[in-house]
Amino acid sequence: MHDVTTSAIKSFENISDARPKMLIQKLVKAIHEYIDDVELTQQEWEMAIDFLTRTGQLCHEQRQEYILLSDVLGVSMLVDEINHSKNHEQTPSTVFGPFFIANMPVRHYADSIIEEKVGDEMPLLVKGKIFNQQGEAIKNAKIEVWQTAENGMYSGQDPDQPVANLRGAFMSQENGEYAFKSILPVSYQIPSDGTVGELLNYSKRHFWRPAHIHFMIIAEGYQPLVTHLFIQNDEYLQGDAVFGVKDRLIVGFEQKQADATSKQQFGLDESFNLIEYDFVLSKGE
Amino acid sequence: MHDVTTSAIKSFENISDARPKMLIQKLVKAIHEYIDDVELTQQEWEMAIDFLTRTGQLCHEQRQEYILLSDVLGVSMLVDEINHSKNHEQTPSTVFGPFFIANMPVRHYADSIIEEKVGDEMPLLVKGKIFNQQGEAIKNAKIEVWQTAENGMYSGQDPDQPVANLRGAFMSQENGEYAFKSILPVSYQIPSDGTVGELLNYSKRHFWRPAHIHFMIIAEGYQPLVTHLFIQNDEYLQGDAVFGVKDRLIVGFEQKQADATSKQQFGLDESFNLIEYDFVLSKGE
Repeated sequence: MHDVTTSAIKSFENISDARPKMLIQKLVKAIHEYIDDVELTQQEWEMAIDFLTRTGQLCHEQRQEYILLSDVLGVSMLVDEINHSKNHEQTPSTVFGPFFIANMPVRHYADSIIEEKVGDEMPLLVKGKIFNQQGEAIKNAKIEVWQTAENGMYSGQDPDQPVANLRGAFMSQENGEYAFKSILPVSYQIPSDGTVGELLNYSKRHFWRPAHIHFMIIAEGYQPLVTHLFIQNDEYLQGDAVFGVKDRLIVGFEQKQADATSKQQFGLDESFNLIEYDFVLSKGE
Repeated sequence: MHDVTTSAIKSFENISDARPKMLIQKLVKAIHEYIDDVELTQQEWEMAIDFLTRTGQLCHEQRQEYILLSDVLGVSMLVDEINHSKNHEQTPSTVFGPFFIANMPVRHYADSIIEEKVGDEMPLLVKGKIFNQQGEAIKNAKIEVWQTAENGMYSGQDPDQPVANLRGAFMSQENGEYAFKSILPVSYQIPSDGTVGELLNYSKRHFWRPAHIHFMIIAEGYQPLVTHLFIQNDEYLQGDAVFGVKDRLIVGFEQKQADATSKQQFGLDESFNLIEYDFVLSKGE
């Protein structure tokens, strides 16, 4: 080990709390070992500094290039796996992704999240219940949803979409039910105009993610659940650019005719696609 | 190894060039192994994303927080050591640091780099020769110098200093000589108002660097040399916050009376401090 490695690790010995001290000292050791192993050149170091700097500079309120980088390196899914692998009954979690926007409108049961209709897609109804592991319905769970528009872009990326388009929060009913209207999400390419784009282009990797709807479900007394529902038969389910697919999160949809019930309960008076999915939360903070 | 680690490493298998492919695949492996080893929590991951993002956002033309981070982690000195350890006759190199500014004025032999005099420090004369390893003088070497003012700040950090203050480039003479006038540098604290400041404060590390003058020497047919001259007896020579000190770079200074020669050659007609130091460059690109 180089002297400077020993000195650098030692320089963090006065951190009071054991876990951060361990995290930082092991991180310094891992970085030094990597650099020593590959014999990093001065020029490669300069490229790394430049890449890290520009990745940070690309971030703003509606863009998070560092999360995207973590995603395409498989880091986000690894962190997810380490933290959520122990519980097999709960609905699996997946990456948070860089496209969440906070403080979106809280909508009513069965409302639509479409703020601006572009094409003439068939309406989609997504509904189901929020349960705990004892099979009890959870009421007043807050269900945040966000997804792409027909053009494969999220609001926040696309100046033509109102910021709340295809986003919203729903509260589960007394019996645990949630429902919202939308359109089917599409497979889309993650942003390629930043440092992550440079990396994937250089590596001849594709930018596609299979179609999905994001969910973040928060209920008092339960662990927050961050996940997606993926749409079955999507051609990118096997090669998701951010490694986010899990079998239990792949759902089918059925085409349904409107009837008295669909009209009365959900305001649907034309043919629609239906996705039904129940989420299971684990007790915890 | 987790499946996502295998998939993430494999996703970079199409990079054409062997070295970048190796660098990226080993980096992904090292990051995943670290995260798996420490069982990084979701909250710790979020803190890391936030820290990396803000470090990038703090950078602008005259501030480079990522280089500073590399410096305080000992990474810059490790890269320096790996790339320059093989040659023991050449003048040792050290960290580049975050305070270099390009395109500073090219000044004449023995000119002063002081653009705005603040205190009444005794003048400093720094002089010597540029040699190659065969002991031959190198003419037309470009010698960039930069240092702190009396207040411990570099121009670029300090809105009260003209940007070229205590900076400049000098060309070596036919006989390899260089000379410039300045003031003695002071020990100073690296910036503490950014993400690096958060890290060092949290770790109860100090911010001091021993007094030094930065040099970057570039000559055709020779390897560029990035180094400092440190001033002997400085109290921080043993605990440099960025691990940059090497014994051969520590220099003394002598107080001199002005005489006919000092006045004629260097424009010095009052008592001054003198540092004499010869630099030795290695052949190469």
